[in-house]
Amino acid sequence: MRVKITLAYDGTDFSGWAAQPGRRTVEATLAEALTTILRLPEPATLTVAGRTDAGVHARGQVVHADLPEQPARHRLNRVLPADVRVHAIQEAPEGFDARFSALWRRYSYRVCDDPAAADPLRRRDTLWYPRPLDVDAMNAAAATLTGEHDFAAFCRRRAGATTVRALRELRWTRNSDLTTIAHVIADAFCHNMVRALVGALLAVGDGSQPPDWPARVLAAKARDPRVRVVQPHGLCLEEVRYPADQDLAARAEQTRRVRA
Amino acid sequence: MRVKITLAYDGTDFSGWAAQPGRRTVEATLAEALTTILRLPEPATLTVAGRTDAGVHARGQVVHADLPEQPARHRLNRVLPADVRVHAIQEAPEGFDARFSALWRRYSYRVCDDPAAADPLRRRDTLWYPRPLDVDAMNAAAATLTGEHDFAAFCRRRAGATTVRALRELRWTRNSDLTTIAHVIADAFCHNMVRALVGALLAVGDGSQPPDWPARVLAAKARDPRVRVVQPHGLCLEEVRYPADQDLAARAEQTRRVRA
Repeated sequence: MRVKITLAYDGTDFSGWAAQPGRRTVEATLAEALTTILRLPEPATLTVAGRTDAGVHARGQVVHADLPEQPARHRLNRVLPADVRVHAIQEAPEGFDARFSALWRRYSYRVCDDPAAADPLRRRDTLWYPRPLDVDAMNAAAATLTGEHDFAAFCRRRAGATTVRALRELRWTRNSDLTTIAHVIADAFCHNMVRALVGALLAVGDGSQPPDWPARVLAAKARDPRVRVVQPHGLCLEEVRYPADQDLAARAEQTRRVRA
Repeated sequence: MRVKITLAYDGTDFSGWAAQPGRRTVEATLAEALTTILRLPEPATLTVAGRTDAGVHARGQVVHADLPEQPARHRLNRVLPADVRVHAIQEAPEGFDARFSALWRRYSYRVCDDPAAADPLRRRDTLWYPRPLDVDAMNAAAATLTGEHDFAAFCRRRAGATTVRALRELRWTRNSDLTTIAHVIADAFCHNMVRALVGALLAVGDGSQPPDWPARVLAAKARDPRVRVVQPHGLCLEEVRYPADQDLAARAEQTRRVRA
C-alpha cells in the first residue's frame, strides 16, 4: 500500500532532506524510523514533495512510501527525535505521488530587520537583517515577478531541466514583532529559487536596488551575481497542495511531461 | 551612573539567570560582556527584576548596573552570544532599582496540547502536553486565584520571607496553532510559583481535577504534592512594569518593607 505522510521538522541540525552517507538527514531519519517500527527487511524508500536544503525547515512537508502496512503515527513519533514530528499518516489515494501530483508548494521566509530587537527564541528560523526593510517597496517589486516565467536568473541551472515555473504568490507581510515574512507559492521551485527571490527583494527593501530591478534581472534569464542567495534558516516549507483525488494521476502525468 | 538594561534570552542553554561557579548563566554572560566592552577593573554587578530558573526564557528582562559610563547597545550585542540580545540601554532615572521598583512582572507559559501536531521549531519554548485542554475550565479555575493571597501552596517556602502576592492576571488564550498560552501578572512571584499555578490549572484543563480544586489548594496554604510544577522551558518573562519616574524611589522603599 502507498502511504501519505505529512511531517514537520526543525532543519537546524539536519544536512537537509536528502539522504547522504555519514550525514544526519531528515530522509534517513524518517526512513530509519519506518524501518524500525514496521520491522522492514530493508530501509523504506521515500518520495518527497519538497527536497529541502540543509538548514531549511518544514511545517507541512509531504512524503509517500510504499509499505506493507500503515504505520501508527504515535509509534512513529515515539521513535523519531523531537526535531521531526509526523502530523498525519493516511493511505494515499489512487494515483497519488507526493512529488509529481502536487499542484503547488507554499514556503515562508522570516526576516527580522531590527536585529537589536530580535527574539533569541526565534533565531533558528529567522534571518537577522541589519537594515530596515520597506515592505511596500518589496511588495511592488514582488508583483512584477509573479506569473509563469523562465526563472533561470534565480535558479541554479541543471542540464536538461526547465527553469520555467508558475509563481502564484510572492508577498510580504509585517508582524507586530519587527519581523517581516515572505509568503511564496509556486507550482514547483528550482534549486535555491526562493532564497534568491528573497535576496533580490531584500536589496529592494533596504534601498540598495530600485523596485524595478528584480524584473530586469528576471528578464535577463541569466544568473546575476548581484542577487544574494539568503541563508537557509529563514526558510520553511509550509504546505503542499494536491488536486482532488480523481485528478491526482493526471496531474502527476502532466508534471512529469512538463519537467522533462 | 546607574544604567537600565532590557534584554531577551533563550534560556535553553543557560543554567538560569543567577551566576554559579562553573555554569553558563545569563548573569555571568552579561556581566562579562559589560566588563569586556567597558574594560572594567572587576566584573560588573547586576541587579535583576526576575531571577529566572534554568531553562526559563525572557523577552523583557530588566537589569540595573552601576557603571562608569553608558555602554553602547550595538557593541554589547556584538560581544554577546546569539541567545542573549540586549534590546535597550538607558541611563536609569533617579531612584530606579530593577528589582524593588517594579510594579509587576508578566510571564507567559506556552503549552501545545496536541503533541502529534506540535511544531518542532517551537519545541524549546513550548510544553508538549499529552492530553487535550479545556481552556474555559482552566480560565474558570484561574479566576478563583487572582487577587492578593498567601500563595504558600504554590511556592517553595523560604524562612523569613512572605508568600503573600498580588496576582493581577491569570488567564489562558488559545492560538490557532494548537497552542494555549497562560498570561500571568503579579507584583512579584515566589520561587516556582508560575510553574506550580500552571501545573494546577493543567490538571483542571485535562479533567483530572475539578475547576474548584486550585482554590481549595490555595486556601490550605501548604504545598500540595498533587500540584505538579511544570517544566521550565514553556515559561518566558515577557515584561516588567515600573511606575512613573517620580514614584520609583517610593515604590522601591515600599517593596523592601513588604518583603522583609
